[in-house]
Amino acid sequence: MKPIRTPVMTSRTLDGLASASLFFKCENFQRAGAFKFRGASHAVSSLSEEEARHGVATHSSGNHGAALALAARLRGIPAFIVMPSTTLGPKKAAVEAYGGKITLCEPTLEARETTLAQVVAETHATFIHPYDDPRVVAGQGTASRELFDECPNLDAIVVPVGGGGLLAGTAQTTKIVSPTTRVFAAEPAAADDAYRSWKAGRIIPSNNPKTIADGLRTSLGNLGFAAIQNLISGVVTVSEEEIVTAMRLVWERMKIIIEPSSAVPVAAVLKREVPGKRIGIILTGGNVDLDALPFNLSK
Amino acid sequence: MKPIRTPVMTSRTLDGLASASLFFKCENFQRAGAFKFRGASHAVSSLSEEEARHGVATHSSGNHGAALALAARLRGIPAFIVMPSTTLGPKKAAVEAYGGKITLCEPTLEARETTLAQVVAETHATFIHPYDDPRVVAGQGTASRELFDECPNLDAIVVPVGGGGLLAGTAQTTKIVSPTTRVFAAEPAAADDAYRSWKAGRIIPSNNPKTIADGLRTSLGNLGFAAIQNLISGVVTVSEEEIVTAMRLVWERMKIIIEPSSAVPVAAVLKREVPGKRIGIILTGGNVDLDALPFNLSK
Repeated sequence: MKPIRTPVMTSRTLDGLASASLFFKCENFQRAGAFKFRGASHAVSSLSEEEARHGVATHSSGNHGAALALAARLRGIPAFIVMPSTTLGPKKAAVEAYGGKITLCEPTLEARETTLAQVVAETHATFIHPYDDPRVVAGQGTASRELFDECPNLDAIVVPVGGGGLLAGTAQTTKIVSPTTRVFAAEPAAADDAYRSWKAGRIIPSNNPKTIADGLRTSLGNLGFAAIQNLISGVVTVSEEEIVTAMRLVWERMKIIIEPSSAVPVAAVLKREVPGKRIGIILTGGNVDLDALPFNLSK
Repeated sequence: MKPIRTPVMTSRTLDGLASASLFFKCENFQRAGAFKFRGASHAVSSLSEEEARHGVATHSSGNHGAALALAARLRGIPAFIVMPSTTLGPKKAAVEAYGGKITLCEPTLEARETTLAQVVAETHATFIHPYDDPRVVAGQGTASRELFDECPNLDAIVVPVGGGGLLAGTAQTTKIVSPTTRVFAAEPAAADDAYRSWKAGRIIPSNNPKTIADGLRTSLGNLGFAAIQNLISGVVTVSEEEIVTAMRLVWERMKIIIEPSSAVPVAAVLKREVPGKRIGIILTGGNVDLDALPFNLSK
């Protein structure tokens, strides 16, 4: 039931390109292929027996859905997953492989929420929000706690921001465990609602943004925004081409498979917009469709 | 200068498919992306100052060439690498990146040897054979020694066989360090000279075989053949489709990048032709051309 304590990897080549010592926390090796299992399993294990009996429900572009389905199965309860119709085939297959029951919807935040409300009304399942839930945020924070355990005295830690669950968990954990480390969010310029929200001082949601980083298309939630306002040092945006180039570099030089969302903080570090000599990066997941790889973009 | 002590990974999914506990020694994370650096660096470090001054030379379909170029550069000496004209672009680029001087030749054993002899005559470099050299074999054996250190009591260990340097090193090491472990070689059916040599009791070379496992197109050498005759329990052959399926499975479920040659022993274990409950597998390398991936074959 517990998340895997994933390894921390390093790369001389990437250190050279970034002019810093980089420490990659490999959540692509996490159960269900992404850090999302940390939050999902923490939330599922916190349910009472009575709550658990009806199962759990969520909306997710993929990794949270698979993670919640797996966490539910490990507790022996049902999981109902609402997914946008644009979700990649392998992410749907993963949810199904873990026994999750999928309902498809239009790829907008509104459609997700409406469909999810119907599912919850029918099943009485407990809604586990993919990022705006303190139980989920607390679970996501364990990735950075393990990283600080192994790599103390980091100048900075960078995570991608979509809904902001990992960002909030990382920022809260860093404040407690490693208060001198600065926290940065990295975001696709093509889905830069966190950047704009940070600049504006209020949440500015995005509407069906187009980015290869499919895990980061969701809009920033309240807990993520609170972290951005109070706990972090900046939001760095990167282009689609920078994402693909960073992803390719990690595949070719580190020999590990990361999904585009994971390449977003790598791209931020490679363009040297994250200050510091010792920088932690959370590689958030490794779930890609091998039949639809983006590398021709970078040629 | 020393090889990296690479991690050992496991996978519940692959264990389930193989009905065994599998321990993957990740030489895809080795310097220059393959176990070949172990043999190359061991050989280069064993040269006298006088020998070293003229540099080293070899013929290689890729990984040994890159490994030798890197080992030479780390000692500050030149490396002359003869490569078949069919070598993949990234493997040539790797040799060049490490400062190796490439001479291209026809993709036959005869052309390799003739061209190499010319290069050695001109440069007075020391020829470091990619597999039929006891210094190289001793270096390759260190991968299995580390695996046994970490995972004692293996019933079997499986390695791919091309020229047989890794096989010989593994078999010799196993005999000393873990004598109850049975050693198996795995080979593409499309380049099955080791299998046929094993059955015939004499070396039967292959001639320009066609297999996706580009690291295994070379014919079995004398040291590999001696290991096959005296030290191992069998040679398992696998089809091209089985190689691609196994490669895809490792990419998708373990989230690591392995080259086709590394998938050959995985395929052997997945078809359950390697007996035992605890099986070690050496994932030999991770150097692939991301622009020419073979996954459409497995659909």
